Amino acid sequence: MMSRKEYALQQLKGLGNDVLGQLVKEEVPNIKVPSRGTGNIIFNEDKRYYELGERYGTRSLGNVKQIKKMAQMMYVANFCKNLVNIQKTATMREMYYVSEGWDVSFDNQQESNNLSEDIEVTLGISREDLGLMPEEDGASVYGDITLKDDDVEINAMKAGKSGYTISPTIDEVEIVDHNVKRVIAVETMGMYHRMVQEKAYNRFDTLIVGLKGQAARATRRFIKRANTELNLPVYICNDGDPWGFHIAMVIISGSAKLAHVNHDLATPDAKFLGVTASDIVNYDLPTDKLKDIDVSRLKELAADPRYNGTQWQTEIKKMLKIGKKAEQQAFSKYGLEYVVDTYLPAKLAEIENQEIE
Amino acid sequence: MMSRKEYALQQLKGLGNDVLGQLVKEEVPNIKVPSRGTGNIIFNEDKRYYELGERYGTRSLGNVKQIKKMAQMMYVANFCKNLVNIQKTATMREMYYVSEGWDVSFDNQQESNNLSEDIEVTLGISREDLGLMPEEDGASVYGDITLKDDDVEINAMKAGKSGYTISPTIDEVEIVDHNVKRVIAVETMGMYHRMVQEKAYNRFDTLIVGLKGQAARATRRFIKRANTELNLPVYICNDGDPWGFHIAMVIISGSAKLAHVNHDLATPDAKFLGVTASDIVNYDLPTDKLKDIDVSRLKELAADPRYNGTQWQTEIKKMLKIGKKAEQQAFSKYGLEYVVDTYLPAKLAEIENQEIE
Repeated sequence: MMSRKEYALQQLKGLGNDVLGQLVKEEVPNIKVPSRGTGNIIFNEDKRYYELGERYGTRSLGNVKQIKKMAQMMYVANFCKNLVNIQKTATMREMYYVSEGWDVSFDNQQESNNLSEDIEVTLGISREDLGLMPEEDGASVYGDITLKDDDVEINAMKAGKSGYTISPTIDEVEIVDHNVKRVIAVETMGMYHRMVQEKAYNRFDTLIVGLKGQAARATRRFIKRANTELNLPVYICNDGDPWGFHIAMVIISGSAKLAHVNHDLATPDAKFLGVTASDIVNYDLPTDKLKDIDVSRLKELAADPRYNGTQWQTEIKKMLKIGKKAEQQAFSKYGLEYVVDTYLPAKLAEIENQEIE
Repeated sequence: MMSRKEYALQQLKGLGNDVLGQLVKEEVPNIKVPSRGTGNIIFNEDKRYYELGERYGTRSLGNVKQIKKMAQMMYVANFCKNLVNIQKTATMREMYYVSEGWDVSFDNQQESNNLSEDIEVTLGISREDLGLMPEEDGASVYGDITLKDDDVEINAMKAGKSGYTISPTIDEVEIVDHNVKRVIAVETMGMYHRMVQEKAYNRFDTLIVGLKGQAARATRRFIKRANTELNLPVYICNDGDPWGFHIAMVIISGSAKLAHVNHDLATPDAKFLGVTASDIVNYDLPTDKLKDIDVSRLKELAADPRYNGTQWQTEIKKMLKIGKKAEQQAFSKYGLEYVVDTYLPAKLAEIENQEIE
């Protein structure tokens, strides 16, 4: 089977050959670029994530307005080809600065970012496979999984208390071995360290993933790999507010903005464990009043196709009704150990029994 | 020698015994709390960091307004004593929720944060030693250093591409061994990954520390330990703008806000390597125009005692004069490798020769 890198190289060369071929035939070179406009971002009910539809635009050297963009596309594609060949990566920021030396430099980084995305959608591969890395590292992982990065093997229980950090190059990391039955991802590093301290990894035979808020692309990719390569169920435990809900949902069904790479990033089988509005009531948690912005966000979520399941609709309505939200650390009201000793076992049993039924 | 934890326990017990002793003698219990007001934050020219002066306030049970605060102090101190005894930690947020179960709970987290700081200054120990952890993890470290955390040994070249993550409990980590001659800290993870990819750790026999912006307390503590325990020189390479300067300065001379713990956090011998205003000119870097907020921040820095060295004053004036700033990734203009192949060797030679002279 072709590696991701080999496939990326093949696609990049294909792009160049298409343009060359048209020139040789004395045709005006053009490239078909799938549209990323909202009209072409479609929620696929079967796949349960956003993807791009069939619409595309044509970029042509015959159009004066598009000449510079075509040339930039060739430069960026060539830059990526070199990166993949020499097995290096660059940040988008670095590429922007490198482009200062090109004949067709960019006016600002937004322009070069957009162009990189054009290449992603045109070739149907993610920019990580093209060597273009996000700045940010991914989540922290703790638990009994062994990974191989180049020639170094790392067990995520032996990388320190803060665990193994998912690097932007996660697709070059091989999963060698593991001895866990599930993955539990939590929103805050406070909760992550609580779970490590309370030995939740032993108690639940789980990997603990500390998301640090909105999950980075590398984190989403890692979670998807754990779910599909290792067949591990994934549970997400976040703050009980619209922002915590949505951090979970982006892991589950992807974002609209990244519709073109959701097939690599979304984990539709991942489940939201809590904190739900029902948890807030059932566990009598310390709460804050919903702010106007929380209320309007909850209403947005209720109308979002990703939230059309019965449970989501029920929980969103209930949160609006009680008018309150709670943080995941609020369980400390009952003692530091409560969340691991009582809450998580109950919720896991509930959700895993549901699945068996 | 007494361990940090033992010292913390002794201080906590001392606080309780003081109050008890006063009660037994039928005196009105009171506690002396060093003042953290701006008037008591003094830049120590010899130590080259901010520390607290001699002023203090007295909290007394004889003052009706202070009764609740005194009681809260006893509760928090007792909570910390338990944490230290059972060798656990809690986030400030968790403690706030735990306090919901006390007879003297807090109105909001700011109040409980302030009270924890009162205990820090009263006992002269940092809150990490009291088991109260920040939420955030520290920097990423790559290079040949071996650390021991509980019974796990970790080499920071064998924890993955994103390296070893400094955990909030860094003072419980033992430095077992190392094979480096210096520490280079960089502001962005983009630059961190560039340096790892270009094998800067071999080239400069260095640890690479990825700060991720403003350095976390754990990062500052780690850098100080590397500098004082291992006698390693520390160099900081940040964006060439007032914010990059100040990220470096907080590592070097500490912040005013944390004057009471700067003796644990500041590394006055750490050096700012760049990006300086001179670098911007000498390397003809891609720049952005200084914004009004940059200009006013630079003027603030010029008047700050931490910046009273000749080099800082010169560089701040020069930046104001050229009216431009540059990011550390701007060296990519000359190719991705340039920063490691050309810039860093030149700057390190310059700064290390200066020191020999």
